[in-house]
This record gives sequence, structure tokens and C-alpha cells, in this order.
Amino acid sequence: MDDDVESGALGPYQDKPRTFPNMRSKSYTPLIFRIFMGINVRVLFVLLLLGLGAVFYVGARTSPILVFVFSVCIISFLLSVYLTKWVLAKDEGPPEMVQISDAIRDGAEGFFRTQYGTISKMAMLLALVILNIYLFRSTTPQQESSGIGRSTSACITVAAFLLGALCSGIAGYVGMWVSVRANVRVSSAARRSAREALQIAVRAGGFSALVVVGMAVVGVAILYATFYVWLGVDSTGSMKVTDLPLLLVGYGFGASFVALFAQLGGGIYTKAADVGADLVGKVEQGIPEDDPRNPAVIADLVGDNVGDCAARGADLFESIAAEIISAMILGGTMAQRCKIEDPSGFILFPLVIHSFDLVISSVGIFSIRGTRDSGVKSPVEDPMAILQKGYSITIILAVLTFGLSTRWLLYTEQAPSAWINFALCGLVGIMTAYVFVWITKYYTDYKHEPVRTLALSSSTGHGTNIIAGVSLGLESTALPVIVISISIVSAFWLGQTSGLVDETGNPTGGLFGTAVATMGMLSTAAYVLTMDMFGPIADNAGGIVEMSQQPESVREITDLLDAVGNTTKATTKGFAIGSAALASFLLFSAYMDEVSAFAHESFKQVDIAIPEVFVGGLLGSMLIFLFSAWACSAVGRTAQEVVNEVRRQFIERPGIMDYKEKPDYGRCVAIVASASLREMIKPGALAIVSPIAVGFLFRILGYYTGHPLLGAKVVAAMLMFATVAGILMALFLNTAGGAWDNAKKYIETGALGGKGSDAHKAAVTGDTVGDPFKDTAGPSLHVLIKMLATITLVMAPVFL
Amino acid sequence: MDDDVESGALGPYQDKPRTFPNMRSKSYTPLIFRIFMGINVRVLFVLLLLGLGAVFYVGARTSPILVFVFSVCIISFLLSVYLTKWVLAKDEGPPEMVQISDAIRDGAEGFFRTQYGTISKMAMLLALVILNIYLFRSTTPQQESSGIGRSTSACITVAAFLLGALCSGIAGYVGMWVSVRANVRVSSAARRSAREALQIAVRAGGFSALVVVGMAVVGVAILYATFYVWLGVDSTGSMKVTDLPLLLVGYGFGASFVALFAQLGGGIYTKAADVGADLVGKVEQGIPEDDPRNPAVIADLVGDNVGDCAARGADLFESIAAEIISAMILGGTMAQRCKIEDPSGFILFPLVIHSFDLVISSVGIFSIRGTRDSGVKSPVEDPMAILQKGYSITIILAVLTFGLSTRWLLYTEQAPSAWINFALCGLVGIMTAYVFVWITKYYTDYKHEPVRTLALSSSTGHGTNIIAGVSLGLESTALPVIVISISIVSAFWLGQTSGLVDETGNPTGGLFGTAVATMGMLSTAAYVLTMDMFGPIADNAGGIVEMSQQPESVREITDLLDAVGNTTKATTKGFAIGSAALASFLLFSAYMDEVSAFAHESFKQVDIAIPEVFVGGLLGSMLIFLFSAWACSAVGRTAQEVVNEVRRQFIERPGIMDYKEKPDYGRCVAIVASASLREMIKPGALAIVSPIAVGFLFRILGYYTGHPLLGAKVVAAMLMFATVAGILMALFLNTAGGAWDNAKKYIETGALGGKGSDAHKAAVTGDTVGDPFKDTAGPSLHVLIKMLATITLVMAPVFL
Repeated sequence: MDDDVESGALGPYQDKPRTFPNMRSKSYTPLIFRIFMGINVRVLFVLLLLGLGAVFYVGARTSPILVFVFSVCIISFLLSVYLTKWVLAKDEGPPEMVQISDAIRDGAEGFFRTQYGTISKMAMLLALVILNIYLFRSTTPQQESSGIGRSTSACITVAAFLLGALCSGIAGYVGMWVSVRANVRVSSAARRSAREALQIAVRAGGFSALVVVGMAVVGVAILYATFYVWLGVDSTGSMKVTDLPLLLVGYGFGASFVALFAQLGGGIYTKAADVGADLVGKVEQGIPEDDPRNPAVIADLVGDNVGDCAARGADLFESIAAEIISAMILGGTMAQRCKIEDPSGFILFPLVIHSFDLVISSVGIFSIRGTRDSGVKSPVEDPMAILQKGYSITIILAVLTFGLSTRWLLYTEQAPSAWINFALCGLVGIMTAYVFVWITKYYTDYKHEPVRTLALSSSTGHGTNIIAGVSLGLESTALPVIVISISIVSAFWLGQTSGLVDETGNPTGGLFGTAVATMGMLSTAAYVLTMDMFGPIADNAGGIVEMSQQPESVREITDLLDAVGNTTKATTKGFAIGSAALASFLLFSAYMDEVSAFAHESFKQVDIAIPEVFVGGLLGSMLIFLFSAWACSAVGRTAQEVVNEVRRQFIERPGIMDYKEKPDYGRCVAIVASASLREMIKPGALAIVSPIAVGFLFRILGYYTGHPLLGAKVVAAMLMFATVAGILMALFLNTAGGAWDNAKKYIETGALGGKGSDAHKAAVTGDTVGDPFKDTAGPSLHVLIKMLATITLVMAPVFL
Repeated sequence: MDDDVESGALGPYQDKPRTFPNMRSKSYTPLIFRIFMGINVRVLFVLLLLGLGAVFYVGARTSPILVFVFSVCIISFLLSVYLTKWVLAKDEGPPEMVQISDAIRDGAEGFFRTQYGTISKMAMLLALVILNIYLFRSTTPQQESSGIGRSTSACITVAAFLLGALCSGIAGYVGMWVSVRANVRVSSAARRSAREALQIAVRAGGFSALVVVGMAVVGVAILYATFYVWLGVDSTGSMKVTDLPLLLVGYGFGASFVALFAQLGGGIYTKAADVGADLVGKVEQGIPEDDPRNPAVIADLVGDNVGDCAARGADLFESIAAEIISAMILGGTMAQRCKIEDPSGFILFPLVIHSFDLVISSVGIFSIRGTRDSGVKSPVEDPMAILQKGYSITIILAVLTFGLSTRWLLYTEQAPSAWINFALCGLVGIMTAYVFVWITKYYTDYKHEPVRTLALSSSTGHGTNIIAGVSLGLESTALPVIVISISIVSAFWLGQTSGLVDETGNPTGGLFGTAVATMGMLSTAAYVLTMDMFGPIADNAGGIVEMSQQPESVREITDLLDAVGNTTKATTKGFAIGSAALASFLLFSAYMDEVSAFAHESFKQVDIAIPEVFVGGLLGSMLIFLFSAWACSAVGRTAQEVVNEVRRQFIERPGIMDYKEKPDYGRCVAIVASASLREMIKPGALAIVSPIAVGFLFRILGYYTGHPLLGAKVVAAMLMFATVAGILMALFLNTAGGAWDNAKKYIETGALGGKGSDAHKAAVTGDTVGDPFKDTAGPSLHVLIKMLATITLVMAPVFL
């Protein structure tokens, strides 16, 4: 039915200039870019060289390992510059495409500006709060012995927090910057060859992946090296190197703070626009997706960029940053307990792993090539197979480099075979990532049983479709949890039996083993992020092709890429959850180490048989439910505003449906933008305030009931229960959403009556419900889990 | 739209005898009743007196408190006999009503027979397993010192298990027995007066409530007294009375085992029939609910009885049994630690509280009277207000009797003011129950904001309705969790400061304080159960009125009662969750006491910082998600079978719609019955097998990694995380379901376009989705939480 409307309407829609308003207000370049551009190029170059020199000098004074890390990062930055140039050199296609793309770019950059304006104000406020807390807290014995006073420690934490926040913001911006430029180039290339379009999308994704991962690594490395040199670490009378990583937690918190709001705001934006556009466009008016007559279509396309590209960039940035820092803390603690001569290998191991990640992922990205004569139209291959091939190459290289790194850095004479155990831990992590991706694919790809059953249940109505989707989502939590359980236990066991023992002869490598497994899991992060970024770029390209009314053959190519993008997006989410689940376990331990250090007493147990601690767990799990509720309802509410606006436009401008009047795209963009900024505050504030409030409350209660450390214990339980509930809830939301989406796509291939049938209508309902599940609440939960861990680390002084 | 069809169709539908098939196969009376009926009445009377005499003799030899308990229970059994006679004396109305009622009764009794046949076979099998486990386990030091060998302990546990299972079965049967008889009498009375109909429904509900609660109390009391006398407790060289309650855990497990399958089977039955009937009848054919032309209508009405009455009876039976036993265990442990002279007051306290429950709830039930001249039609009052008045009376009496009981039983000279603290704990519990009921009403009643917002979101389509409902459900978990947290902490604190101290002077009353609060919460259980049972009876009566085509005025009365029933059903669920949450905390402690006793070493902590223990928690939470998934999908699948059957009948017998052909009700009943029996096995087996398997697996792992008690610790974490996740999930499912139901009802009152509008269609979808949430998965989770606790108690030897 949709197709009829569409092809029948192609004719009258030829006078394009009238239809696409020139929506560009004015070209916008961020202040910092303008300053840079104002400076003479040679001066800039010299400044850059000077900066690099300083970084290398500090790095060399800290550890030769850091020199390696800096070198790799710089090479990959250069590589990413090459990738950008390559992508930008591609043509932007005919003017109608450019116009649409410009409108999208303006919408995305406008939203980004306002959103990050709000976020940066909140970050400043929080920085002040942290500063005050740290100025009035007690210092740790280590700090006292090394002469770091309160004010130094406060400055360090706040500086790290702000740097983390800034880098996270840049990571988000970079993700969006490239995607709003690549989308139109992919559309244009799709007119020539599927392979070329694929290659552009992959390289654009690769650019931002390299920048995001590289910046996470380089940020932590610079902070580490600066503190090392500044505080004169390891010289007599000053701080020990094994205590240094604890100073970095602010960086992780800054990153996750920004990521949380980026994901919430972006997620609400993209899905409110999507749901609103679909409900009126597809369901009520029966026009196809991304039809230019739909007033909400530009908002929808903008949403892909701010919701998927910017937010996912910030998300993975903070995942990697948090995981690196917590693994460094654990490595330091273990090295200290085992009295290892040179602990820097254990501490800097995560940075090296992620440097190799940059190298091997680049290989993977470059392995995806255009066909030799890309000017000629080649037969369409399965893009999924091409991406999968690149992934396999990356995975194999990851296994090799991981083994190499463990031998290089984790070999000690005390336990000569420990590095083998840790290499096996890494293997456990890599395999976990692989299995996770596979499970997600099983539950969300319509080649397999679950989605087909879901599609079948659509044939008995909306109700059975929703029931089946919810059950599918709930059921899909089982296998990943079992896999994660096996990896935690086996990595811990491998670490424990590595031969590393503390002074009293107790094996101590267990937790570090889990840390190494987490690194293994994230050791292909840059490639996975590339595949993920590929999704929204392809989606956008499809939208541009659709809106500029390209011929059917071009649309087929972008549809194919879009479908693959859906799958890669779903699998990345599985990957993100898995790594969050593993990483959170490290963060608990880091938190407990930190509390021990501050409280001057041992904190090794979180005993949930104590009623208050159990209550903390109850509240933590509840936090996840409430957060998800607010994230979903924010989308629902904003979507209703969009629905009303679109309905209003269709009524007030009856000519829209006959292409005689142009819809007011700008109003929809404005409505969604302001609504999503408003709506992101409530869930975000909940996530930040509640652990602090609960910890503080129980600290006071503990004070009056004579229960030392009660606040810290309750927060620990809250954190652990929230993590468990968050993992399950996110798996449920992501998988259910992905499955609904693909069940709809399966029916659209012609199964069970195809497009326009009752089954299809039921499937569209499922898809609509799944949208906020999989793109707002679910991904926000990944961030939330890690933000809770970093916030408790930073705010620990409040609970003591 | 529906109304047109309906009223237009009234005319031709006057030749009733042809339309309602005589579906009765043969009158069925359970074997045990037939045996009783075969015996001469005088002989029976003498036997009864002898039995009573024996019970009183044993009770008197144990404790005078038990004599009180037995007396109250016997009085309330007599009272319930009076209530039955009163209800049965009411007229059954015209023959068309009787015919429908007979068909419902046969369907319900047939399903009950098959279902409990299956359950009893599984119970026998499990009894064998338990027997074997206990024959090969080690004994506790207490048992050794008192000379209880393995075989005695095995026999005791198995006997208790089987008695618990039997009593639970009887509780379910009684609930159903009265409801299939009361429904038609309520319909008939509705022709005369709303007040009389209300009174019949309340008294019928009251009958089964008194029997269920009374049986739980009397069962535990008889077991306790028998063991006391048999084992010669408290005489020198034998068992101490404080260890006796641990022998009763089998009873709780038996009860929850049966309740789990009763709730699963019944829940799947009722909702599959309901969803199936609605999807074809309401949505596709546009005929009203409970229309006689719908082939699935009898199955739907049968479902109310087996799903709501029988299952809720079994559910509350096991709630009370498990709570009594765990409170007895805790009371015993505490009395022993504090070296209290006569511990029987602390141990038997729960039995006395529930005896008073029987008394005060009877007062509440009898306070609901018919109007003086019930023959004359009186103006319709708000039935909710009448029920609420009864509840208020019961609550006030509960506060009084609770204070009385604490003074009587919990006064000790060691801590003269302890009883005041415990009375306050009870008050905390009673208030918690009250607030819980209020919160549930706020989120599910359409007088309040949440449901109205939900209804409003239906106006933008199916998708926004589901998103809003899911968010509402997720959000509704917050307040109850905060309330529960406050009650746990405050009751614990009140207990802790009661002045009861152990030998070393440490305060020990905390946990018992929580136990007392739980008892406070359950101290009006019989009245709450009455209100709950009222719901399905009114629902059924409405169905009978609708099917027998009574005039509009009669239908108005039953609709009113039905709407009230919906609210009371929702609030009872809140009540059940709240008590489960509190009770589970007792059961953890009881489990840890039990493990300590068996393992001959202290087990006081569940440290989730140990990776394996954390993994146990992860698996426990996952169990809840998977169980919910399977419960929901069972309904979805069975409903699809019903949909296909109903569609087939409409196609093959086109005369049905014009009342020219009669639908084959029996086939739908048979399909639903066999499908729900099949579908209940998978989730049920999951719930029973997984804790045992996980505990056993980690026990072995612990053995090889040199980690003592690992199995028991992992199971403890599994239990606690599962409880937390279960509480949240059940709150989510129940509230979302209830809210969807009432949002639909709100629209049916004419809001937002009323019946037949697009908003109504979207609301019907929400209601369909909510059905398995609120009546299958949600209530099964209540049972699951407590079953997990009792299964770990009974199976503890496997984990050690």
C-alpha cells in the first residue's frame, strides 16, 4: 500500500527547490575551532609540535611504555585525519541531496550546541560540589605520607573530572561531526556502487572510532604522566606509583557524567522524533518512512546523528576510560600486595592493550576496500559478510597482540607463568565478546527462530505481539547472564591460580584476572564502534536518498546497508552491556579499595544479611526501574508533542499531502530539541543524586546507631544490585526493541501478508514500543551502570 | 458500537434451551468426600469429636497458648460453616443462570482435578527426592544431642512437606468450591438488590478466607504440638523447644510448591482464555465481553475460578504458613540467645496473631450487612466504601489485638519494655500494609493521575499506550520500595533497641522486630483475602448475568461490583508483595541459621564482593526475568491456540453470530485446560531446579577451590537478589496490568471518545498485554519468591 502512494506521487514532485526550504540559519563553527582557524597555520604547527614534545617528554620521564602508547595514539590520529580527508574528498551528490544534508547538519549541530551548553553548566556546578567535598574531607594515610594536602587532592580530582567531561564532549562531537558529513557522501556513492557506499560509511565510522578510543587512551595517559612528574612519584617521601591510578577516578566520572546526559538527551531526541513521525506518517497517513511530506522527517534524521553517533561515541569513550582506570587501580593494588619490583607493567597494561586496539582495528577498517574498478556498478554483495570478515581479522589480531602484551608487561620473575594465565583471561574476554555478539544476533536477527515466532504472534494482533516481544526480551537475558557468570568465575580462577601471591602466600591475582578479561572483551572496541557508527550513517544516507527521491536501485542499496546497520547496532549494544557487566565488577573493587584507604580501616565485605545493606540493594534495583520508567516516558511524552504538531500541520496545510505546500520541518526540530533537553534532566538527576543521598543518609543513620562505614556499605550494595538489575534490564530493553524492529522488517519482506497487512500493523506497534526501549532507556542504562560506579568512587568521602 | 450489536441481538435470542448445551458430563465429588458421605453421620460426629479431643490433648500437653489457638480456629471453622450454609441457602435464580453456572462449575472442577492430579504426582516425586537427600545428609549437633537420627529427621521433613502440600491443595479447592457456587447466587441476588449481591459475594469470600487462614494456623499448630509430644521436647536429653520450629520448614515448602503450580496453571488458564476470547470477540468481531456467542466465554469464566480463587487461596495459604514458620524459627533463635526462661511465648506468637486475625476479620466480614428490607430495591451505594469501612474496622481491631498479644506473650522480666517496642513493630507492619494498599490504588485507580495519563496516551495510538503503561509500571515500583525500606530499617531498629540482649550484652531483637512487623502486615490477612475473593466471584456473576441476557439494570449492578473487584484484586496483590518482601527477609535469616546448624560453623555473612557469590546474585535476578518470560509467553502461546479455535468456529459455524448455531464451548475449555497444564511445567521446573542446581554446582566448585560453604553462600545471594528482582518485577507487572485494565475502563465510561474509538482500541491492546502481566506472571512471582526461600531451607543439605 505504502509503495503505491509513493510511486504514484513521484511525478508531481519534480520542482524541488520549492519543497526544501533553505533551513540553514547561519553556518556555525565552535568557538575553539574559530580561534584555531584564526591562528596562522605555521604558528599552529609549531604549537602542536611543542605540545607533542611536552607530552613525549613527560611520558618518557614516567615510563617507556607511555612513549609507546603516545606514539601509537599519534599515528592513529594521523590515520584518522587521512580517513577524514578521504571521506570528505568524496562528492556530495546533486544539490537536492546537499540541501537535505545541510538541514540535517544544522539541526544536529544546533541541538548539540544547546545540549552540551546545558551539560557543561551542570558539569561546572558539579565540579564546584566536588571541590567543596574534597576540601573538607579527610586524607588517606598514603596522601599524608606523600604530602598531598586536601587542596592538591581537590584540585587533582576536579581537574580530572573536567578533563574527562571535556574529552567526552569532544568524542561526542567528533562522532556527530563526521556522520553529518558522511551521510550525504554515502547517499551519493550509493548511486554508483554499494561497495563504495559501504566503504565510505565504514571509513567515516572508523574515523570517529579511532578518535574516540585514541582520546580515551591519550587522556588517561597524559593525566597519569602529568601527575607522575608533578607529584614526583616514586621518589623517596612521596607517593607510590601504585597509588597513582586512584587519582584518575575523576576523569572516569567526568566522562560518564557527560555520556549519561548525552545518551539521555540524544536518545530522547532521536526516538521521540522517530516514534512521532511513524505514528502519524506511517500509521495514520500511510506514507512511507522518511517521506519528505512528513514534517517530522528532518527531526528524525537529525536524531540519528545526535542520538546514535554523538551519544554512542560518548558512551564508548567513558566505557573505555572507566575500564582503563579501574584496571589500573586493580593492577596497582595487586602489584603492591605482591611486592612486584616494577609495577608499571601491571598499571599501564590497559593503555597498551587499547593502543594495540587502535592498531588492529585500523587494519580491520582498511581491510574493507572498494572494488578495484569502483566506477562500474558491481553486483551487490552481503555487506554483513564484509563487515564480519573485517571483524574476524581484528579478532585474530587481537588474540595475537594480547598474548604479546601479556608477555611483555605481565611477566614477573615471582610468577614466571602468570602471564600465560592472564593471556588466557584475555582470551576468555575476547570469546565472551564474540559469544555476546552471537547471542544478540540470534535473538534479534530474523534469520533465527525467536524473531520469526515474534512475527508470527503479530498475526493474532497487537496484544499478542507485545506479549511475545516482552517475553522474548525477558528470556534473552538468560544466556548472556550465564556467559558473563562463566567468564567472571573462570577469569577470576585463572587469575587466582596465576602464581601471584601476597606476603602471606595467599593467591591475589583473581580480581586482576577479571580485569584482564574485561580488557580482552574491549580489545576490539575501536572496530566494534566503527560497525556501530556505520549504522546511523547508513540510516541517514537512506533517509537522504528517500527524501531526494532517488531511483529504486539506489534505494535498494541504502536499504540493504540500513538493515545491516540495524544488526550491527544491536550487537554493539550487547557488547557494551557485556563489557559494562565485567567492568562494573572491577569498579566495585576499586571502590572498596578507595573506601579502605580513606576510612583507615579494612573494607572487604558487602554483607547483604545486614538489613540496611539489603535495603541499599533494594533501593539500587529500584533506581534502575525508575530510571528506565522516566527515560521511556520522556520519549512517550515528547512523541505525543510531535504527533500533535504533525497532525496540526497536516490539517492546517492540506496541500502537504499533494506536495503543494511545504511542511515546516524546523518547528518539529525545535519542538523535539527543547523537549528532549527538558526531559533529560529528571532521569539524569535521579541517577546522580540518589546514590549520594542514600549514602549520606545511611552514613548519618550509621553514626547514630553506632555502625561504622554503614553509608559506604549501603552504597556498595546499592551499586552491585543496581548493576545486576541494570544489566538485566538493559539486555531486556535492547533485545526486545531490536527483535520488534526486525520482526517488522521480516514482515515487510513479504512474510505473513507483508506491508499493509494486519500483522504488519501489529508489528509496527511493536517497533514503536521498542524504539525507546532500545535507543533511549537501554543504552542510557549502560552509561548509568558505569556512572554509578564512578560517582561512588568520587563521592566516597561523603559516605564516610 | 458494541452496544448496538448487543441490544439489537437481544430479540432473536429468546429460545434459550437450544443455546446452552447441557455440558455436564457427570456430577463429580472428590473421593474423600464420597468416603465421608458414605459413613453414618453419627459415626462421623463421634470421629470428629475424637479427633478434636486428640488435638486438644496434644495441644494442652504442649502449651496453653495452643489451646487458645485451637479453640479460636474451631470457632472460626464453625463460623465458616455458618457462612456456607447462609450462602447456599440463597436462591440460584432462573434455570438459564443455573445452566451457565453448572457449565462453569464442571469446567472448573474438571480442570482442578486434572491440575491437582499432576501436581500431586510431582509432589510425590519431590517427596522421594527429599527423603533420599535427608537420609544421606549429616545431622545437626542439636539433633544428635537429642537423639533424632537421620531417618527420623527425613520422615519429619517429608511428612511436613506432604501435609503442607495437602493443606495447600485443600485451601485451593475450598476457594474454588465456594466461588463456583456463590457466583450464580450473586447474579440472582443482583436482580433484587446491589447490597444483597455484595453481601453474598463478601460472605462467600469470607468463608474461604477463614478456612484458608484457619487451616494454615491449625496445620502448623498441630505439627508443632505433635512433634513436641512425640519427640519429648524440653525433657532432659532431648530436643530444645527453640529448635523445634526448624522441623516445620517442610510444611512451608509443601505449601509453596503446590501454590506455585496452582498459580501458574490457573494463571495461564484464566488469562489465555481471557486474551483469546477478547482478541477474537471484542477486537475482531466487535461483540461485547462475556457474550454467549463467543465460544471461549465459558473457558474465560472458568478461568476466573481456577486462576483467581483457587490460586489466590493457595498463594495466601503459603504466605501465611511460610511467614508463621520463619517467625517461629527467629523467635526460637532469639529466645535461646537471650536465655529467656519460657521461650514458648516468642515461638507461638505468630499463631496467636493469626488466631486474632480470624476473629477480627470475622467481625469485619459480618459488619457488611444487607439493608434491613433487602426485598425492596435500595439505591445503589458505592460498594468500595462499604468494603473499605469493613477494612477500617478490621485494622482498628488489629491494632488493639496486636498490642494485647505482645503484652501477653512478649513480656519478659529481662526487658520489661520490649513488648512495647514489638507492638510498635506491629504497628509499622499494619501501616505498611495500609500504605501499600493506598499506593496500589493510586497507580491503578482511574480516579487518579497515572491512569488518566495512560488513558490519554491511548489517544495517540497503540504504541504510545504501551510505552506509557510500561513506564507507569516501572515507575510504580519506587514508592513501595521506599516504604518497604523504611519499614525494614525501622522495625529492625525498634527490635534492636527493645532491650533484649544476648549473653555478651549485644542487642539481638532486630530480626525478630522485622518478623513482628511482617506479622503486623499480615494481621488482617483474612479480611484482605475476603476482599480479594470477592473480585472473581463478582466477575463471574457479571459474566452469568451477561450470558443469560438479564436486563440492563441487573447488569449495572454486577458491573459496579466487578469494577470494585478489580480494585480490590489489585490492592491484594500489593499487599501480597509487601508481605512477601518482608517475609523473605526472615526466611534468609532462617536459612542462614539452618546452614550454621548443619555445617557446624558460623554462617553470618553473605559477602557479594566474592565473585562467585556475586555471580549467584546475577543468576538469581536472571531467574526472575526468565521465569516471567516463560509465564508470559505461555499465556501468549495458549491464547493463540484459543484465537485459532474461536476463529475456526466462527468460520465453520457462520450461524453463531446470529444465535442460530451454538458455539462449542467445551472444545475451548478442553484446549485451554490441556495447554495450561502443559505450559505450567517449564517455568515451575525452572523455579525448583535452578536454585538446587546452582547450589550443588558451586558446592562442587567450592570443594575443588578450597572454599568452604561456597554453595550455601551462592544460594543465599541468589535468593536475596531473586527476592529483590522478584519484588520489583512483580510490582511492575501487577501495577502495569491493573493500570491498563482501568485505563480501558476509564475510556469505556465515555472519556476520550469512549467505546469503539481509536483510543479505546489502543486501550484494549494495553489491557490484553496487561492480562498475563497482572494475573499470571505477577502473582506467580509472589509465590516464587517465597518458594525459593523455602526450597533453599529444605534443600540446604545439598549445598553443604
